Amino acid sequence: MRVRELNYRTIWPSEHGNAVEVIDQTRLPHRFEVVQLKSLADMVHAIKTMQVRGAPLIGAATAYGLALAMREHAGDEYLRQAASTLLSSRPTAVNLRWAVQRMLQCLEPASVAERADLAWREAAAICNEDVAINQAIAGHGLALLQALHEEQQRPLNILTHCNAGWLATVDWGTALAPVYAAFDAGIPVHVWVDETRPRNQGASLTAWELGQHGVPHTVITDNAGGHLMQQGRVDAVVVGADRVTRGGDVCNKIGTYLKALAAYDNDVPFYAAVPSSTIDWQIADARSEIPIEERNAEEVGHIGGRLADGTFAVIDILPAGSAVANPAFDITPARLVTGIITERGTCPPDSLPVLFPEFQP
Amino acid sequence: MRVRELNYRTIWPSEHGNAVEVIDQTRLPHRFEVVQLKSLADMVHAIKTMQVRGAPLIGAATAYGLALAMREHAGDEYLRQAASTLLSSRPTAVNLRWAVQRMLQCLEPASVAERADLAWREAAAICNEDVAINQAIAGHGLALLQALHEEQQRPLNILTHCNAGWLATVDWGTALAPVYAAFDAGIPVHVWVDETRPRNQGASLTAWELGQHGVPHTVITDNAGGHLMQQGRVDAVVVGADRVTRGGDVCNKIGTYLKALAAYDNDVPFYAAVPSSTIDWQIADARSEIPIEERNAEEVGHIGGRLADGTFAVIDILPAGSAVANPAFDITPARLVTGIITERGTCPPDSLPVLFPEFQP
Repeated sequence: MRVRELNYRTIWPSEHGNAVEVIDQTRLPHRFEVVQLKSLADMVHAIKTMQVRGAPLIGAATAYGLALAMREHAGDEYLRQAASTLLSSRPTAVNLRWAVQRMLQCLEPASVAERADLAWREAAAICNEDVAINQAIAGHGLALLQALHEEQQRPLNILTHCNAGWLATVDWGTALAPVYAAFDAGIPVHVWVDETRPRNQGASLTAWELGQHGVPHTVITDNAGGHLMQQGRVDAVVVGADRVTRGGDVCNKIGTYLKALAAYDNDVPFYAAVPSSTIDWQIADARSEIPIEERNAEEVGHIGGRLADGTFAVIDILPAGSAVANPAFDITPARLVTGIITERGTCPPDSLPVLFPEFQP
Repeated sequence: MRVRELNYRTIWPSEHGNAVEVIDQTRLPHRFEVVQLKSLADMVHAIKTMQVRGAPLIGAATAYGLALAMREHAGDEYLRQAASTLLSSRPTAVNLRWAVQRMLQCLEPASVAERADLAWREAAAICNEDVAINQAIAGHGLALLQALHEEQQRPLNILTHCNAGWLATVDWGTALAPVYAAFDAGIPVHVWVDETRPRNQGASLTAWELGQHGVPHTVITDNAGGHLMQQGRVDAVVVGADRVTRGGDVCNKIGTYLKALAAYDNDVPFYAAVPSSTIDWQIADARSEIPIEERNAEEVGHIGGRLADGTFAVIDILPAGSAVANPAFDITPARLVTGIITERGTCPPDSLPVLFPEFQP
């Protein structure tokens, strides 16, 4: 997508093929900075500190992490060790495991001498496929938004939580892909952007990328969405996901469940837009089987932003001595979900196995 | 309640009876500052900027605002003008209207010469009654918490939104009054404190006052409560309110509705604790009849806190050019409310007229 008139992806190999470059998402919206990652350790650090984040992008970053590792040492033991280090960097997004498995399937049968080149090619293929998948999601989501718009005959109001835009993927996005497609097709669309505490991915990333593309949007606190739905000011909720079960439970950024409850209570359709790499076919019970990452308590009390003089600062909003809890994800049960938008089309939450019969047990 | 070993109320007359002192709640938790208000204009400013806030305290502040006005000029016209200025300072809390009506009933029949002294006495009486009412709420709420604790045989986890503690009243609080009573009675209690964006009254006021009293508590983002309820880690939600209809709809800080939905979805009891001055007997339909204050957009993007060097600063978290909406309250329909805790006892939301038969139409 475009940033100041130039086209960018969120991740790409450096010119000489020995490093990976990413947009540092911890600096946005205040600074647009590209960082170069030269080693597996750099990539693990980037994933853990959320310089790269978003389930599909974490998948692509994992693939490139293994590619960087194969330049360091291509032996079996290091490959397994690198895979395991990456797997433990973030526990909730299943795309990480998906990418590791796909890379291992490609690399394990190959000779040590071939592995590095093979890994770089496979990582690039994963990135290109992600873009194609998101374009397919855009098309299927666009059909939904078009139908909603024809029904309503007025500008569409979409509410989204966290960032599932192009910054969360290699390009285009998942939840925002249909919004960009609708905007580009001339459908009047406006996005309510949940700020998404504690890390403010909505206020800092979603608002920024919608602004760069010119899509009308309004930032709201995470508390406001229910009220807006009660007032009939939201036509659909569209979010991404970090993991979706085969039964259609949606594990996504903390707070998504609250918006799904409000959507259900106000007859507002609630969609999750995901590539199939986000679906975990092995899990039956989301609540007991999906590990919910508990992130550093400092993320809640410490907030970064721009001072009046334009410099960046971090403030502490809490009284000394107050304890903090910081669960990063929650689970929206399938009963609250209207549909899952995938690269193969949109289906009710319990019909994912119909769209993807090859994953049947 | 106690602040650094001294007893405080949130509002009191200055020693010589010509000014009012309040704790400046916009400075907490970083600084504990008392400000002196010398005129009606000072009081209106304090209410609008939320140096004083919380429905019951707004009522007491309104009474003292009229007392200050009567020192300026005690004629009929200025009395009516002062009442109308105060009424328009914040639109949602009904305690403001309640206090104006009570003061007018007291002052209008009196002679101009008597009015100033009468107004100061009536404002003091309103404050003392608020404290007594909150102690009664504490007692009725304590009975509920005691019963919950006996049922569960483990520490009680109470979730609260915004600040309905002693800082929101003259003393003791509404939602937190039962918590203080339980803590003082030796019942093990722990409070989940919603930070309550955009103004962070949970993180800055509730956490601070619970900490001063030694009550165990954990600050969470507004997004986290639903997840904690799904996990069985919340035994009851207790909030205050800015206005409750006679049918039991609860108008409270934006985001309350989302917590009530989650409580209902997880069989967690949801209580609003309010003095009867918060009940609006005139309103039938909360959604169409209660004005929802839309506050300044700057409150969402601009956050105040402590820099690493201990100084106070305000940061901007938003990208330039993003629009912001900032509705300050929402309405929780009575169907999601387990009970209303009042100074006369706890009742189902539709039974308020039984507890207060004198307000029957």
